[in-house]
Amino acid sequence: MKLFTTIAQMREEREAIDGHLGLVPTMGYLHAGHIALARQAKKENAVVVVSIFVNPKQFNPGEDLTTYPRDIGRDIKLLEDESVDIIFAPTVEEIYPTGHSTYVNVDQIASRLEGIQRPQHFRGVATVVTKLFSIVNPTRSYFGQKDGQQLLVIKRLTQDLNLATEIRSVPTIREADGLALSSRNLYLSSQERQAAPVIFRSLCHIDQLWQSGERNGNILRQEIRRFIQNEPLAKIDYVSIADMVDLEELSIVNEPAMASVAVRFGKARLIDNILLEDIV
Amino acid sequence: MKLFTTIAQMREEREAIDGHLGLVPTMGYLHAGHIALARQAKKENAVVVVSIFVNPKQFNPGEDLTTYPRDIGRDIKLLEDESVDIIFAPTVEEIYPTGHSTYVNVDQIASRLEGIQRPQHFRGVATVVTKLFSIVNPTRSYFGQKDGQQLLVIKRLTQDLNLATEIRSVPTIREADGLALSSRNLYLSSQERQAAPVIFRSLCHIDQLWQSGERNGNILRQEIRRFIQNEPLAKIDYVSIADMVDLEELSIVNEPAMASVAVRFGKARLIDNILLEDIV
Repeated sequence: MKLFTTIAQMREEREAIDGHLGLVPTMGYLHAGHIALARQAKKENAVVVVSIFVNPKQFNPGEDLTTYPRDIGRDIKLLEDESVDIIFAPTVEEIYPTGHSTYVNVDQIASRLEGIQRPQHFRGVATVVTKLFSIVNPTRSYFGQKDGQQLLVIKRLTQDLNLATEIRSVPTIREADGLALSSRNLYLSSQERQAAPVIFRSLCHIDQLWQSGERNGNILRQEIRRFIQNEPLAKIDYVSIADMVDLEELSIVNEPAMASVAVRFGKARLIDNILLEDIV
Repeated sequence: MKLFTTIAQMREEREAIDGHLGLVPTMGYLHAGHIALARQAKKENAVVVVSIFVNPKQFNPGEDLTTYPRDIGRDIKLLEDESVDIIFAPTVEEIYPTGHSTYVNVDQIASRLEGIQRPQHFRGVATVVTKLFSIVNPTRSYFGQKDGQQLLVIKRLTQDLNLATEIRSVPTIREADGLALSSRNLYLSSQERQAAPVIFRSLCHIDQLWQSGERNGNILRQEIRRFIQNEPLAKIDYVSIADMVDLEELSIVNEPAMASVAVRFGKARLIDNILLEDIV
């Protein structure tokens, strides 16, 4: 396994690679969700690059940029076990040298949900992803379904800017009790950890309602809220059932839709989603 | 010479090209300035692509999008004479299909000068240029010094987004009387055409002042204004002497600087610039 910290090294290595290359962009502190992405990439490409970069531009002021968990030694070991070929772990100064002032903005879709709670978040995501695509030039790039809106934003920008990589999504990996894996689960107290699976249970609940014919968006959203509000430690940020093109809230949920929520438990702000679609 | 109108065709052709490729992005209605870019590209690359696309996103409402001159037949003939290899002339729908909503924004540098007079202009330029770079994947890309601020914006975004093309600039081509070539010179009445060289004369005048030691930015800007205001048909939009990093107006002109102006003559809005730098 090779570890590169500069853009020049990464580019030089890339130029010598002929076969298909899969990129897994991460912020490090890897868990089984990231590993699932790396394995999928490994299956589909000759060479796999995992990038590790805690991107300051996607944190808003007051968010957890400084406390975001980091452990590069542990990450390296985990990726070595997966036979990942290359780790690209640049410094902040390497990605955003003094004078950097270009940003990629995705309108509409990025302004909703997380975009309301975290202005500038997707601008940061879109910018760093565009840069990583330019530097690594991946055939395919892998993102988790867990960050559902992020996935839609990245698909949109890849199409809109004609970037030559295929966006592949991988299903959310969950704990046995349904909690979606996230580096931020670390922030949960043991009590909060016990309460947090209510998020996924609420989504499964309305999935069942939807499968049995309930199409009223307000009722479905209300049912998610009712479920989560039963848990006193939970504070809802948003509940959404939206189309998957513009993320507009649906009054009638007839098309493939994404049900997504953001919920705070103490210091932790957790997001999760499921897709409402006919099982073919 | 090959002519492609779809992104898929252009991409497919690109994949079969091994050597260095030079891209000359244009809005068509070619003049000797564009030809100089194509010739420079020809000198430095195995294959030359000229793109022709009147980019609606870089026109503001009320500007000359619909009346902007177009003559693809004439353009093809001119480029054939220059042994250009490929013309890429996509439709608006091909570049901006329904749902397109991603934009590249360059802060600071793009907000000044043209950015004040033409909000959204550089957002449109930066977005289309990023897309063209993705589609054509050029080794080198050629832009005229005449659009001086555009050149700085494109250099900035190429660096900031780590785009893998080298930005090459080519000196402004001028008529015998000094008027910079521009497709928009077409809008000049014969009287206005006679008056328009005052722009370049004003720039030459302050270049001489600067060469002979005048370093006061206000005096130099004032001298440009004084010169142009002597011409009753001219209406000044802006006069600038700014650094070449952030385009901040300089009070003391000690570093390499760009003196630039925008002037209206009737329906035509003309821009021009010179670089103030020590002759080595």
